[in-house]
Amino acid sequence: MSLATSRRLEVDLGDRSYPIIIGPGIISTAESYKNSIRSRQVMVVTNETVAPLYLDNVLQALRGFHVEQVILPDGEQYKTLEILNSIYDALLSSRFDRSCTLLALGGGVVGDMTGFAAASYQRGVDFVQVPTTLLSQVDSSVGGKTGVNHPLGKNMIGAFHQPRCVIADTDTLNTLPERELAAGLAEVIKYGVINDISFFEWLEANIERLLARDSEALVYAIERSCRDKAVIVAADEKEAGQRALLNLGHTFGHAIESGMGYGVWLHGEAIAAGMAMAADMSFQMGWLDADEQERIRSLLQKAHLPVDPPAEISAERFLELMSVDKKVLNGELRLVLLRGIGKAEVTADYAASALQQTVAV
Amino acid sequence: MSLATSRRLEVDLGDRSYPIIIGPGIISTAESYKNSIRSRQVMVVTNETVAPLYLDNVLQALRGFHVEQVILPDGEQYKTLEILNSIYDALLSSRFDRSCTLLALGGGVVGDMTGFAAASYQRGVDFVQVPTTLLSQVDSSVGGKTGVNHPLGKNMIGAFHQPRCVIADTDTLNTLPERELAAGLAEVIKYGVINDISFFEWLEANIERLLARDSEALVYAIERSCRDKAVIVAADEKEAGQRALLNLGHTFGHAIESGMGYGVWLHGEAIAAGMAMAADMSFQMGWLDADEQERIRSLLQKAHLPVDPPAEISAERFLELMSVDKKVLNGELRLVLLRGIGKAEVTADYAASALQQTVAV
Repeated sequence: MSLATSRRLEVDLGDRSYPIIIGPGIISTAESYKNSIRSRQVMVVTNETVAPLYLDNVLQALRGFHVEQVILPDGEQYKTLEILNSIYDALLSSRFDRSCTLLALGGGVVGDMTGFAAASYQRGVDFVQVPTTLLSQVDSSVGGKTGVNHPLGKNMIGAFHQPRCVIADTDTLNTLPERELAAGLAEVIKYGVINDISFFEWLEANIERLLARDSEALVYAIERSCRDKAVIVAADEKEAGQRALLNLGHTFGHAIESGMGYGVWLHGEAIAAGMAMAADMSFQMGWLDADEQERIRSLLQKAHLPVDPPAEISAERFLELMSVDKKVLNGELRLVLLRGIGKAEVTADYAASALQQTVAV
Repeated sequence: MSLATSRRLEVDLGDRSYPIIIGPGIISTAESYKNSIRSRQVMVVTNETVAPLYLDNVLQALRGFHVEQVILPDGEQYKTLEILNSIYDALLSSRFDRSCTLLALGGGVVGDMTGFAAASYQRGVDFVQVPTTLLSQVDSSVGGKTGVNHPLGKNMIGAFHQPRCVIADTDTLNTLPERELAAGLAEVIKYGVINDISFFEWLEANIERLLARDSEALVYAIERSCRDKAVIVAADEKEAGQRALLNLGHTFGHAIESGMGYGVWLHGEAIAAGMAMAADMSFQMGWLDADEQERIRSLLQKAHLPVDPPAEISAERFLELMSVDKKVLNGELRLVLLRGIGKAEVTADYAASALQQTVAV
C-alpha cells in the first residue's frame, strides 16, 4: 500500500456506464469486484508473464466464484484469431454459459482479446478489465474497443464491447519493464497534446515522478488520462468524428508497427514516434510553431521514447502501409494534425508533399 | 417472373430498422439495392453452389459499385473461424475500408458468416442479406443473429448485427433441392406452432402449394413467418425472455446436429424432429393433448420432415449434448414446451423423467 488513495471515475454511457477504480493494491480485495460481477462463472484470462505475478492475488479476491483460467502466450504477435480461439476452447470445455463473466488480467493484448472473446462468446457476455500496464490503464480502460490483429492489418477484426468495470491497480506498475512504462507514458502525453494543455504542462513538471513510479503521481495521471479520453468517447461512442482525435500518432504508428512486424516496436513507442511525425508534419504545414514542436519532442524524449520513425522503413513502403489503415474513408487518407499543443484536428486537407517529407527518414 | 407481386415488410428496431423485400425476380434489379447500399465498395460473399446460379444476376444489378467477391465452400461444416478468416482476407486484400458493405448471397451459413464478418470487420460495417433458401428467408432475415460454429458447440461465436436490408427472392427457391425446401418449411411451421394457430391452419390447408413452389403461397408464407418472428424479436432484441420461444425444437435439434456431426442432418430437419420431441414431451407432461400432438407430427410429415430423433444417438449422449446448449442458464436447462398449438412456453419446470423418456429413442 502507499499514501495514494484510490479514486473512482464513472464512464457515462447510459445503460452501459461503468466505473474505473484506480489505486494501489486494489486487485487483491474482493470489494473491488463485488458490484461488477453478476455471474457465478468467471473466466480469468491472463498471460504467462502476468500470471506468476498477480494471478494468485486475483484468485484470492474471487473466492466464492466458480473461477477458471486461461493463460495466453505473451506478446502482440499472439493477438490472433488462433489464440482467441483458445479462449473459446476454455469457455466451452468448462461449459461456461451465456451469463458468465470474462475477466482480463494483463496489458492491452490480453484486454483486447478477452474483450472480443466476451463480445462474441454466445453473442456477448460480461467483461471485467484488470489492466496491469500503464498503457492499458490509460488506453483500453475507456472506449470499449476490442479485437485481434490480421496479418494484413492491426485490430482489423473486433467489436465495441463495454466492460462492466475497470480495476487499475497502480501497484502492478512496479513490475513493469522500463520500456513498457515509457510506452504507457506515450498515451498519457497524447491526451495532453490532443486537447489538454494544462495536463501537458503538469506532465512537463512531473515526468520524473512518473518515471520513478510515484503512486500519487500515477493515480493522478491515470485518472486525468481516462477522464480526458472519456469526454471524447462519450461524445462519439462509435468513432464517426470527434473520437478520431484519439488516433493522434496512430496512422503513422500503426505503419511502424506493421512495417517492423508486430511486437518489434511496442505500441506506445510507435505512437510516440507517430505523434512526433504528426507534429513534424504540422510544423511543415505552418500549423505548429517550432517551439511547440520542440516541447512535444522533448517531453517524449524525457519519457525515454523514440521521436523518429525506424530507418528500416523506406518512405515508399511507409505510404503503402498507411493506406490500409482503418482511418481511410472511401480511399481518402485522414490524419490527426496539430494547430498547437492541446489543439488536435482531424483533416484530409494537407499537401501530399508535407506527408511525403514527413515519412522520408 | 410470376403472378405474385413483391411485398415489403419493415422490421422496427428504432434507428436500426430495415426492410425485408419479398417477391419473385427481385435480386436482379438495381432498384432492390439502391436505397440500402450507402458505400461504393461492396463485397459479395456467396458459395460454390449458389455462385453459378445467381452471382451474375446480382453483379449485373450492382453495376456502378466497386464489387469484389468471395466464394466459400458450401456446407455447415465450413461455418468455422477459419473460413470466416477468408472473408477478412478478401476484404483486406481488396483494401476495403470501414465504410464498405458486405452482401451475403446464399443460405443460412453464408448469411451467418457474412453477418459476423460484417459485425467484426473493423468493428462493424454495413450488411445486406440476399437469402436464397427458404430457411434463411424465414429465419435469418429477422433477428440479427450472426456467427460461426465451434467444434464444441453450434453458433457459439457470434454477434448481434442487423442488416441494412433483406432481399428474399422466391425465384431462387426454384433451384432449391427438395430436402432443403422441406427444411425451410420446418421453420415456417414453427412460427405457427409457437403463437400463430391461424397460420398453422393455413399451412395445413396449403402445404402442397408450398411443396409445389407456388410463388404466391411462398410470398405469403415468408411474409407471415418474418412478421411473426419480427413481433417476437422487436419485443426482446437480445434474447432475455420472449425471444427464447423461437428456440422451439432447437435444444433437441442442436443436440441432433452436433451428435450426428454438423451437416449430416440439415438444420431444419433437426428442428423438425426437435419440435416433434418438444410436442412429445409436452404430451407426456399433460400439457398438450394427443390430437394436437398428432396434428403437429402430421404437418411435419406432409412437409417430408423427420419427426423422430436419429437412432444413432443414445439417450445418455443426447442429454450430454443438450447440456452445452446456449440456453443453459447457470446450469439450469430451460426448454420451450407447448400448452397447445400456438401456445409455446419457456420453462425449466418439468419432470426430469419426461425429458429422459423423450430422448430415449
